[in-house]
Amino acid sequence: MSVAVSGQTSSIKEYIHDVTQRAADARAEIAAASTEVKNQALTNIADEILASREELKRKNMLDLQAGKERGLASAMIDRLKLTDARIEAMAEGLVQVSKLPDPVGEMSEMNIRPTGIKVGKMRVPIGVILIIYESRPNVTADAAALCIKSGNVTILRGGSEAIHSNQAIANCIHNGLQKVGIAKDVVQVIATADRQAVTELLHADEIINIVIPRGGKGLVEKITQESHIPLIKHLDGVCHVYIHEDAGVDMATEIAVNAKAQRFGVCNAMETLLIDEKIANQILPELEKRFKEKQVELRGCAKTQKILTNIKSASEGDWYEEYLGPVLAIKIVDDFADAIQHIEKYGSHHTDAIVTNNELIAQRFLREVDSSSVMVNASTRFADGFEYGLGAEIGISTDKLHARGPVGLEGLTTQKFIVLGDGNIRE
Amino acid sequence: MSVAVSGQTSSIKEYIHDVTQRAADARAEIAAASTEVKNQALTNIADEILASREELKRKNMLDLQAGKERGLASAMIDRLKLTDARIEAMAEGLVQVSKLPDPVGEMSEMNIRPTGIKVGKMRVPIGVILIIYESRPNVTADAAALCIKSGNVTILRGGSEAIHSNQAIANCIHNGLQKVGIAKDVVQVIATADRQAVTELLHADEIINIVIPRGGKGLVEKITQESHIPLIKHLDGVCHVYIHEDAGVDMATEIAVNAKAQRFGVCNAMETLLIDEKIANQILPELEKRFKEKQVELRGCAKTQKILTNIKSASEGDWYEEYLGPVLAIKIVDDFADAIQHIEKYGSHHTDAIVTNNELIAQRFLREVDSSSVMVNASTRFADGFEYGLGAEIGISTDKLHARGPVGLEGLTTQKFIVLGDGNIRE
Repeated sequence: MSVAVSGQTSSIKEYIHDVTQRAADARAEIAAASTEVKNQALTNIADEILASREELKRKNMLDLQAGKERGLASAMIDRLKLTDARIEAMAEGLVQVSKLPDPVGEMSEMNIRPTGIKVGKMRVPIGVILIIYESRPNVTADAAALCIKSGNVTILRGGSEAIHSNQAIANCIHNGLQKVGIAKDVVQVIATADRQAVTELLHADEIINIVIPRGGKGLVEKITQESHIPLIKHLDGVCHVYIHEDAGVDMATEIAVNAKAQRFGVCNAMETLLIDEKIANQILPELEKRFKEKQVELRGCAKTQKILTNIKSASEGDWYEEYLGPVLAIKIVDDFADAIQHIEKYGSHHTDAIVTNNELIAQRFLREVDSSSVMVNASTRFADGFEYGLGAEIGISTDKLHARGPVGLEGLTTQKFIVLGDGNIRE
Repeated sequence: MSVAVSGQTSSIKEYIHDVTQRAADARAEIAAASTEVKNQALTNIADEILASREELKRKNMLDLQAGKERGLASAMIDRLKLTDARIEAMAEGLVQVSKLPDPVGEMSEMNIRPTGIKVGKMRVPIGVILIIYESRPNVTADAAALCIKSGNVTILRGGSEAIHSNQAIANCIHNGLQKVGIAKDVVQVIATADRQAVTELLHADEIINIVIPRGGKGLVEKITQESHIPLIKHLDGVCHVYIHEDAGVDMATEIAVNAKAQRFGVCNAMETLLIDEKIANQILPELEKRFKEKQVELRGCAKTQKILTNIKSASEGDWYEEYLGPVLAIKIVDDFADAIQHIEKYGSHHTDAIVTNNELIAQRFLREVDSSSVMVNASTRFADGFEYGLGAEIGISTDKLHARGPVGLEGLTTQKFIVLGDGNIRE
């Protein structure tokens, strides 16, 4: 593979042209690979990663040093770091993916039509997937694993700050693939930090079928604007818990505290709590006490402030906010309709939950809230590929089309129609 | 509704802003409408259309006259014309859609996770769908029917040449909706022929969830370039039939003739016939005779021309061609791999069929050919929503994501995750 020289647009163009051509050429091979071969490749890669532990840490050190010299924030440096535990977790992740059922080739919905043809669907790989991500080198192994298992070719473009680590992981992936006779071009890790490479990739719409950006909102919006290739993307997680008037107070309290405080800084944490006016007096004082223990700052609407007189007021901006930290906005709503309207207006269609013992209200909430995950009497923190039983996830989609919510192996495939006849012709 | 004055950009902008706001406001209502109400609306619209027969023909006459004055081609004038039979077919189409099962609210894949939560999926409408189409006014009724039944709001932008006919059909739709108490904004038909309206719509990505272009390749490519809203689109139908060496000669002949000549000018007609070298001598003379009867012009590769010495030679361009007419390109291939490579290189991933008695080869063909419909021993002409049992189709998608192949009610919906708990929190 040619290595591009940063800053030279023409050579970057050639380099990316070469990468995408190799990807196109590798597509048929991995799409047709058997489950056994793909699983063997995954466990091979896991073995390579464990065997290359020292090499991975040495290359990672280059990134860490460069990062410190460039003054990267300590949180970023932490994400970048490959420890023994993280290296083992990468290998373990690969082994886990090897154990998941293979979605490719699965046939469903077969039925016989009046003309005698049998019509159904077959699940097949999407083709060539571009994944653009930041800092964490483990994404290189995780994303490669999911794409190999789902029969796709991947082009991986990690953050420039992790380039040495990512190239070292790429070597492990290539060795693992080649040991079962699969072309290493099935997984290509971009070998330049030049931003021009991303631009070139985003315009390769003849070859790349889908782009998955994994990173902050800025990255996602930039890619959306720059490319006409379909995206599986994740934007905000402004998640709500709505405590309905028919909620049990204890259950509502436990779910609200868990949804906000089990872990901060995750997209499925609650950011705004909606409480029905009829139950607010009864529940708010206990909630205040519990959130105080968790050191969560509360910001309330005017009605909330009448009950919890010591808390700050929530501004209009708070209802849109994804705090990703120990802050919670609280609003007292008039009724079910008011709650639904708030979620529709301010929410981000990620994950929203209701706490209620009223079955009809629960059914209406499930149907009417237009979010990727809608929950009844459960914490929003369950919105996660592992918790849902997908085995692993490439991300959580806040898009409506193709894949919505946690995206696992199935989201990396598509279905085509298949027709079986015995000489049928159309009259 | 305000009516925009053509040529005044600011008023078009305001008009489209108004249209999209109304669409957004109508979304929750149609999404939550019961199956009974939606079905009643559809049969009401059918009744309105039948009762407005004379009015529809009068308005259609305005379009026909304007079209003739503008010198529209006679094929276009024919597509534009509303006859009694076509009006009745529109009404019948609406009644048929009312009889289809409602996909909205359908729950599937429910299972209990080790944490005790129940996780599954619920089928829900996409939201707001923009459909851009040309000439045929019946699309206005057909598209509205499918969108109403699937719980979506639609904005319909028909061809400028059909504007009077489309507005008259829109009146019937609005009357039918309002009689069951559904806001007429659920289906809006753009009331200006100004092209600026399309541009404004294609930039309303905050409100419009999906665009479905129904028209020629030029229209589709233009929209793809102009918008960042996801598309369900149809490009070419360069469909193949591959006669494998283990094919029965009679079956192969019947399928090839049907795939090409049952109807010309349709996207699922065969454009290139691939014949295995080992069977070519045996089958080509009979095929030539049969295609001659159907007045199909044959163009062959060099090897084909050695057997059928009177036919023209196919150029490189022929293999890419969607003739949509009585022309067929024929190529003799070395073997299965050669056929697959030809389809991958020159095909449009629409519909491809193999004729073979070899079960293993059939399975490989099904799996390896990357097209929206892949067939064994059946004519490509079966690639159609009605033939597949979808009941009706909004089009055939040559995209890979979300909806692939004929798109019916299911393709106009999406699935969200639903989680049912009894107070579950994440540890």
